[in-house]
Amino acid sequence: MMPFMDADFLLKNETAKKLYHGHAAQMPIIDYHCHINPQEIYEDKRYATITEVWLGGDHYKWRAMRSCGVPERYITGDATPAEKFQKWAETIPNLIGNPLYHWTHLELQRYFGIYEPLCGENAMEIYEKCNAMLQNMSARSIIAQSNVKLLCTTDDPADDLSWHEKMAADATMPAIVLPAFRPDKAMRADKPDFPQYLSKLEAAVGYPINTMADMRRALTERIDYFDAHGCRTADHGLDYALYVEATEAQLEDIFLRAKAGKGITWEEQLAYHTALLVHCGKSYKKYDWVNQLHFGCIRDNSRKMFGKLGPDTGFDAINDQSNAQGLARLLSAYEMGDALTKTIVYSLNPSDNGVVGSLIGCFQSDSPIPGKIQQGSAWWFNDHKPGMEAQMISLMSLGAFGTFNGMLTDSRSFLSYTRHEYFRRILCNLLGRLVEEGEYPADLEFLGKMVENISYYNTRRYFRFEKLLK
Amino acid sequence: MMPFMDADFLLKNETAKKLYHGHAAQMPIIDYHCHINPQEIYEDKRYATITEVWLGGDHYKWRAMRSCGVPERYITGDATPAEKFQKWAETIPNLIGNPLYHWTHLELQRYFGIYEPLCGENAMEIYEKCNAMLQNMSARSIIAQSNVKLLCTTDDPADDLSWHEKMAADATMPAIVLPAFRPDKAMRADKPDFPQYLSKLEAAVGYPINTMADMRRALTERIDYFDAHGCRTADHGLDYALYVEATEAQLEDIFLRAKAGKGITWEEQLAYHTALLVHCGKSYKKYDWVNQLHFGCIRDNSRKMFGKLGPDTGFDAINDQSNAQGLARLLSAYEMGDALTKTIVYSLNPSDNGVVGSLIGCFQSDSPIPGKIQQGSAWWFNDHKPGMEAQMISLMSLGAFGTFNGMLTDSRSFLSYTRHEYFRRILCNLLGRLVEEGEYPADLEFLGKMVENISYYNTRRYFRFEKLLK
Amino acid sequence: MMPFMDADFLLKNETAKKLYHGHAAQMPIIDYHCHINPQEIYEDKRYATITEVWLGGDHYKWRAMRSCGVPERYITGDATPAEKFQKWAETIPNLIGNPLYHWTHLELQRYFGIYEPLCGENAMEIYEKCNAMLQNMSARSIIAQSNVKLLCTTDDPADDLSWHEKMAADATMPAIVLPAFRPDKAMRADKPDFPQYLSKLEAAVGYPINTMADMRRALTERIDYFDAHGCRTADHGLDYALYVEATEAQLEDIFLRAKAGKGITWEEQLAYHTALLVHCGKSYKKYDWVNQLHFGCIRDNSRKMFGKLGPDTGFDAINDQSNAQGLARLLSAYEMGDALTKTIVYSLNPSDNGVVGSLIGCFQSDSPIPGKIQQGSAWWFNDHKPGMEAQMISLMSLGAFGTFNGMLTDSRSFLSYTRHEYFRRILCNLLGRLVEEGEYPADLEFLGKMVENISYYNTRRYFRFEKLLK
Repeated sequence: MMPFMDADFLLKNETAKKLYHGHAAQMPIIDYHCHINPQEIYEDKRYATITEVWLGGDHYKWRAMRSCGVPERYITGDATPAEKFQKWAETIPNLIGNPLYHWTHLELQRYFGIYEPLCGENAMEIYEKCNAMLQNMSARSIIAQSNVKLLCTTDDPADDLSWHEKMAADATMPAIVLPAFRPDKAMRADKPDFPQYLSKLEAAVGYPINTMADMRRALTERIDYFDAHGCRTADHGLDYALYVEATEAQLEDIFLRAKAGKGITWEEQLAYHTALLVHCGKSYKKYDWVNQLHFGCIRDNSRKMFGKLGPDTGFDAINDQSNAQGLARLLSAYEMGDALTKTIVYSLNPSDNGVVGSLIGCFQSDSPIPGKIQQGSAWWFNDHKPGMEAQMISLMSLGAFGTFNGMLTDSRSFLSYTRHEYFRRILCNLLGRLVEEGEYPADLEFLGKMVENISYYNTRRYFRFEKLLK
Repeated sequence: MMPFMDADFLLKNETAKKLYHGHAAQMPIIDYHCHINPQEIYEDKRYATITEVWLGGDHYKWRAMRSCGVPERYITGDATPAEKFQKWAETIPNLIGNPLYHWTHLELQRYFGIYEPLCGENAMEIYEKCNAMLQNMSARSIIAQSNVKLLCTTDDPADDLSWHEKMAADATMPAIVLPAFRPDKAMRADKPDFPQYLSKLEAAVGYPINTMADMRRALTERIDYFDAHGCRTADHGLDYALYVEATEAQLEDIFLRAKAGKGITWEEQLAYHTALLVHCGKSYKKYDWVNQLHFGCIRDNSRKMFGKLGPDTGFDAINDQSNAQGLARLLSAYEMGDALTKTIVYSLNPSDNGVVGSLIGCFQSDSPIPGKIQQGSAWWFNDHKPGMEAQMISLMSLGAFGTFNGMLTDSRSFLSYTRHEYFRRILCNLLGRLVEEGEYPADLEFLGKMVENISYYNTRRYFRFEKLLK
Repeated sequence: MMPFMDADFLLKNETAKKLYHGHAAQMPIIDYHCHINPQEIYEDKRYATITEVWLGGDHYKWRAMRSCGVPERYITGDATPAEKFQKWAETIPNLIGNPLYHWTHLELQRYFGIYEPLCGENAMEIYEKCNAMLQNMSARSIIAQSNVKLLCTTDDPADDLSWHEKMAADATMPAIVLPAFRPDKAMRADKPDFPQYLSKLEAAVGYPINTMADMRRALTERIDYFDAHGCRTADHGLDYALYVEATEAQLEDIFLRAKAGKGITWEEQLAYHTALLVHCGKSYKKYDWVNQLHFGCIRDNSRKMFGKLGPDTGFDAINDQSNAQGLARLLSAYEMGDALTKTIVYSLNPSDNGVVGSLIGCFQSDSPIPGKIQQGSAWWFNDHKPGMEAQMISLMSLGAFGTFNGMLTDSRSFLSYTRHEYFRRILCNLLGRLVEEGEYPADLEFLGKMVENISYYNTRRYFRFEKLLK
């Protein structure tokens, strides 16, 4: 029997242990997609309690607590931090096989030196111990301790990137922090708050946005602005892989009605979205950015709880719309429009692994770099051992695994960097197994390099971070 | 090499053996969803031959025989019981990896003390031995021997529940038998026999059903009637997760045309179905029932064989319609309409595991009980080791596995209770593996309790059976 | 640790080794579906370099090279054979977990006696060695050496089968070579080259094809012609499982517009396709042919590269349209129209395994042969260890595995016969595991027979090849 989460956690064969301890563990972290607040990094946020760090905004944990019958008062309500932590601790033992179980204990081990399994009985003792240690911790110290060399936040085109400017000018930063361009709000003309959003964007660019041409110009200029602030990647959230063509006159009409708050159809929204995706892609390509496409999510499913708590509070799920045709057409339209830059495709539906893995292989021609079009690492609801293994096995079965960019946290929490460790252990275990079962030569030197590449160097090269991370 | 189906069948690690033999094996059975005929229980049905028990109505076995080229005469035709058994026995060795292989031998072992693998050569010897033992067996004795404490049949709203009344009054019953409310016929206004069904329902309620209001009242009253007869659960069979809104005037029009046998469109059927699902949900919630939603099936696919043999004869399959949006909207409509009672969601398509597992987590808020919304155990075509493991791994990856209600047979046969054993072995093996591979602490006492909960106590609590099963 | 790809490659348990070495390895090969050029067999094609054999037309390898950033010049361009091979060799180490890795080394081992892993460093040495050995190899010698007893090519209805005639008359042939009827071009009235194709077909039948009746007659006569040339199977490539009904007048109108090059809608194309599928099925049934249905592919996704290189050059992917309803209706229409002959169903989407596996079980009634309707072996993008295991586990969970027809190459290359070895190793490992884990009795004699059946005898019987292969 392997001990519970010891140094060889998830490493079930000798080759895996050598690859992990000899190669993966030493690699720094580039967290190229996360939802950390740049202000909190700059201001070096501190936390009074572990409840604040863990349960302040982590809707993964909220869902788990709700599933265990914990009343909302202890989740997003007015219970005390100690009460909330107690309820979380009581939830934990039910989570066998859930990544929250492993993440929680990895974080307790790595950041707090706590090696006992958390449960209702020891909750207050662990609570006090974590809180005491948090007095000497901060956003920046956690980043430094985690060996994070670079991270990309997620930023709206209307954002002035002032926190990023301050960080760029701050010689004491523990890591490079870059913005990422996420123009979802500009592209969702069907949303009721679209007109208000336009006002924000108008303020950012300094002129009225009255036509599609204005809208395109505004996005182009904001991309210029982001690039000037070191941005290397854009990111798009789509319900599913969409592609709908429309004439320029139709697009103009859609835009005008949306701006006037008159409402547009879903088909019209898709046409508008398609046009701007391809438009922005041209600038991404020009600047050699990475385009990230996230789809396969159905959001805000509980209208009742959305009314109470708003978005991103634990009420999203995996979507199952067909994606092959939309993704094929979108990527082809990018290619024909000189807008197919390096691209990472993520579907939230694990049943899409084969579709995504086979489609990306159709758009790799004459790429400037190995693995120009990537399948993103298992994301969100799939960010667990079986999900990561399924994504990696699909990816290697269908493509050139050695070019894989590997992990990102997609997280809102500063303690989530252990997810890179989690990924690397699963990666090494998988490669080790292939070797030990005779499916790949036991060339540990080459495999060690592959592990280092997937853990770090591939991403560094793909995003052109070499100069920043010498 | 592990011996063929011995006491440690499917238990591949020491922790699994401890969990199964020390905990799971002792637990009684609550079979909360099955298709056993209540009359046969009350009348304590006896069987002249094993053919009658095994091949009388089991379309799983019929399919397997057809797949092996057995002529229909030996399946549903006029061959003798001995001839049919011979053909089934000849089919068996081809079924490597099929759950029928394991179910058959579990039933031979547990009910008949036969430990040899069945095949064409020993068919007649086993046939005679089983038939001899069946002389001392009956529906009730099998239930008692199987340690079944409670079971729920599947009943139409128009049913008078007279067999359930007799059983309730019978002090010699080996187990509690409760009805379950399955109003599919009332909800399929598109079916040619809908007008005839309405007449049956009118007879049950004692008044004409001429309007949607009448229909709603009739269903409400039948739910009242079922609740008064101890019912604790409703069950709905859907082709896919549906949700279509309509005005009251539209619904009225749809109902009137359907009642008049004039035909309605599929879209109209969906609107009618949606309205009644939500309507009934209010009563389910009021009575604190469990709502079961089964979807993902495409039925009666061979028109030729449907014409000869009718429904439920082995010609159904897994459907692959998109379910995420329909299920999200239906559950949200239940929630907004104060109709979201405890709910168990089953999709027949194993590719839906992620969709269902993530969506149920959106509707757990302020639940009166842990795991208010459940993903049902792997069902029908997925009721095998890989299918059950996939459902459990998905469930634990996405939710709080400790709250899982576990197994049900969904069977038409009295010998199917060994499927609970089959499930428990797979459950213990999976949990044991996580422990032995260091993914969960080796706290055997806690895990033993978890296994007992998933085998028995969670279901007892979820359905409020505690008072009935002290 | 198991050595890299030695004699026990992929055989991870003792039973697997016995089954493979004692049974599977000795079986001859029937390759009932491939894309080899019959002229090349007849003319006994020879190859100047390994580049020509391996990289001349293998778009699987082209995709892998593109994914590794290899410029198109080294793939389909004017680089020298040595340069292209060098680039392929440099690609190889990145392909951990990819079937190309295993196929490449199986082919190096079996045909060239080379046991080192190919990489950039030893590329030129291996290149020279292979080229030298190729001087004594040819299409026919490879077929003979591979123990191929019979293979079916893929042929258009307009083909005169002259190469097949020559081979039938050639007493020196190393294997029987039969045509297969693939009328995709006749059935794609939506394609721009449909009118030109009609002219070809008119030339083959010797009369104008001006009506649907002419079209049906033409196809019927070509089936007659193919049957007279020993054909035993037809094959259809569909984007997804389709079924659309239309009246005869509508079909006539669709055909006339398509023939006139006026364009038809996608829905009209589906109706036309449906009508001809069922029409041809009647002749297939009459001749006791095998009908193969391949679907789930989305083709020519990169418009840019399609413009440069045309079809079948590595720009296809897995489709994710819903297939259950279309397949159910198509098979039922075949059945009702006395057109349901033995049929093999392949979906390219691995998420369809459950749908296909359950649907085929609905159409096995009163079949003349065990396993009348089959799920084809894991195909194309799924033709790797995890994909084949998933297909086999699904198939055995849902059906009678003992009746499975097993492997085919679907290949354009003469060196691909080792894929049968690859499949057989995976098959034996899977069956061996079930035995060693106590899920099936250790009856090695029976299992050996099952392995021989799935490797060879089932296919021989299913296609009525017994007389040809005495």
